[in-house]
Amino acid sequence: MTLAVIMAGGRGERFWPKSRQNRPKQFLRLIGDKTMLQRTVGRVEKFLTAENIYIITAENHREIVRRQVPQIPPENIILEPCGRDTAAAIGLAAVIVRQKDAAGTMIVLPADHYIADEERFAAIVKGAVEAAEKGHAVTIGIQPNRPETGFGYIVQGRFYQKFAGIPSFHVERFTEKPNRQQALAFLESGCCFWNSGIFVWKAGLIRRLIAEHLPPLAEGLEKLEAALGTEGYPRVLQDVYSRLPRISIDYGVMEKTEEVLMLPGDFGWDDVGSWTALESYKDKDSDGNILEGEGVLVDTKNTMVQASDKIVATLGVHDLIVVENERSILICHKQKAQELKKVINALQENGYKEIL
Amino acid sequence: MTLAVIMAGGRGERFWPKSRQNRPKQFLRLIGDKTMLQRTVGRVEKFLTAENIYIITAENHREIVRRQVPQIPPENIILEPCGRDTAAAIGLAAVIVRQKDAAGTMIVLPADHYIADEERFAAIVKGAVEAAEKGHAVTIGIQPNRPETGFGYIVQGRFYQKFAGIPSFHVERFTEKPNRQQALAFLESGCCFWNSGIFVWKAGLIRRLIAEHLPPLAEGLEKLEAALGTEGYPRVLQDVYSRLPRISIDYGVMEKTEEVLMLPGDFGWDDVGSWTALESYKDKDSDGNILEGEGVLVDTKNTMVQASDKIVATLGVHDLIVVENERSILICHKQKAQELKKVINALQENGYKEIL
Repeated sequence: MTLAVIMAGGRGERFWPKSRQNRPKQFLRLIGDKTMLQRTVGRVEKFLTAENIYIITAENHREIVRRQVPQIPPENIILEPCGRDTAAAIGLAAVIVRQKDAAGTMIVLPADHYIADEERFAAIVKGAVEAAEKGHAVTIGIQPNRPETGFGYIVQGRFYQKFAGIPSFHVERFTEKPNRQQALAFLESGCCFWNSGIFVWKAGLIRRLIAEHLPPLAEGLEKLEAALGTEGYPRVLQDVYSRLPRISIDYGVMEKTEEVLMLPGDFGWDDVGSWTALESYKDKDSDGNILEGEGVLVDTKNTMVQASDKIVATLGVHDLIVVENERSILICHKQKAQELKKVINALQENGYKEIL
Repeated sequence: MTLAVIMAGGRGERFWPKSRQNRPKQFLRLIGDKTMLQRTVGRVEKFLTAENIYIITAENHREIVRRQVPQIPPENIILEPCGRDTAAAIGLAAVIVRQKDAAGTMIVLPADHYIADEERFAAIVKGAVEAAEKGHAVTIGIQPNRPETGFGYIVQGRFYQKFAGIPSFHVERFTEKPNRQQALAFLESGCCFWNSGIFVWKAGLIRRLIAEHLPPLAEGLEKLEAALGTEGYPRVLQDVYSRLPRISIDYGVMEKTEEVLMLPGDFGWDDVGSWTALESYKDKDSDGNILEGEGVLVDTKNTMVQASDKIVATLGVHDLIVVENERSILICHKQKAQELKKVINALQENGYKEIL
């Protein structure tokens, strides 16, 4: 049986003030009229039924998930008592998925990424599932189109074989986020791929890999597995989860695993990690401006305005991002969009925690 | 008897969105905790009682004037049925002032200017009143400190005499707003003064000067004078006022009058004509920023933020003016602050008249 686990635990500060602690990126309508989570579920529903789609998210986001994707059975919404990064989340999901089908194949995918070509995506995932069913740990790599320093990379090894018509390659190694110079070299090499965070493997395999490389996590997962289905489970989850090691699946498991296959995912992918990344998916006027909501942009160039209840007028500005929400207004130079964390920190320090 | 006429008919689009059609500049708290009108009245109350202070304003601003300066007797609030520029307004005021005292001396002064040294202002006005009582038409000139192209200028003639210790000069001529090059020449010459719009004369004298230089206005004023105090007056005012010539007192009368005296007004004057002009009266942080209302300014320089109900966060911007009001948000580059009219026009064209 093939099951999808959608990772919807992200905090998404990079879209403040539209994203908030109680409404992170995956729950926002950033592109089009569906939220990122709804888009992700819709993409997976092309090849899986809702009963086989799981969503793992923070406890306090249960209701928003149920509202946004009511077709997902409530018991498929896996709640993390606290954030412990992706290794723990995937481990917990593997425990729950294995309860449904001990031999099940798990597609792990982030809830907040953009994918342009959903049919190609489905075809690549089909290949990845076939490889996973043969016992492989599979990741999907993305051909870079810019020297991105915000992602981890996968160095492609030799060709292995095709699965469902999709070529697969050995992974030479996973690398951490590069500096600018390294990122340029990766881009030029032609054999380095972005780590998309999409993985496919049998639930049993990822449990074994965790046992091999992250014994403390494996121990915790065993306790959770033992309690699962009993009335003591919620207490055990609360108890155990917060003490699981906080590490990503990439650092904790994938980098240490020798046999990983990569399928190049040429379906138009973007993690849409910032306000500026979002721009490419919006219609612009002849001055390169984007206006959502009400306003007038006078002598204004390359500026994105997202107004909510007020009318925004700009005059003589360029390369700005202006975002209004119910409580706040952000005015940010595009070149600084990656440093939004500074604003979050400043707001926190100045006692504006309630608007974060 | 000396009487003051405060000209409060301005529209003040230059402070949108804080200024609105129903709340122009003179009614705003731009500097400190009093409105410009309140500051102006307070300045005059240092040497005149409220009974001798008149305010001329638009009909629809009667209530805001009464609220802001309740000490002014209601019958001293002169209402213009429509805006016909300063010659008509001053003419109407002269008609009304002469009813109180046919030999009265009128101090005409704009409601929306900033004056730093109120004692010095009172001393200069005292000199001007003394000169006016001797039968002169008097204006107060301001020594320029920048090559301002937004004002008319007064070219100083030869010294005449002192009045109450204040030197007076013949006016060589009034000139219209100069271009940049002329303004620089004026500044360097040392004998050109800004036309502050502050005039002192006997009400009878300005009536005679109007009769001499603007006969159509004089005719209208005669009709008003005849109706004044009768029950037909409001209808006559409605009828006559809208047909008065629309011209400023400077162009219509002062430029054509041979014998005008100027007293240099060294009391620290500014017409505060734009958001950028306002800046000099605000406290700045070490990065040159001004924050009124709530917000955080991160990596931000020389930026003025006036927030009202939302919290404004800026990141990586400089030289911006950000003003929020109940309905709108303005984001304007400082170099474009003089072109705010473009925003007003764009809002009008796009159906946002209700926020102007």
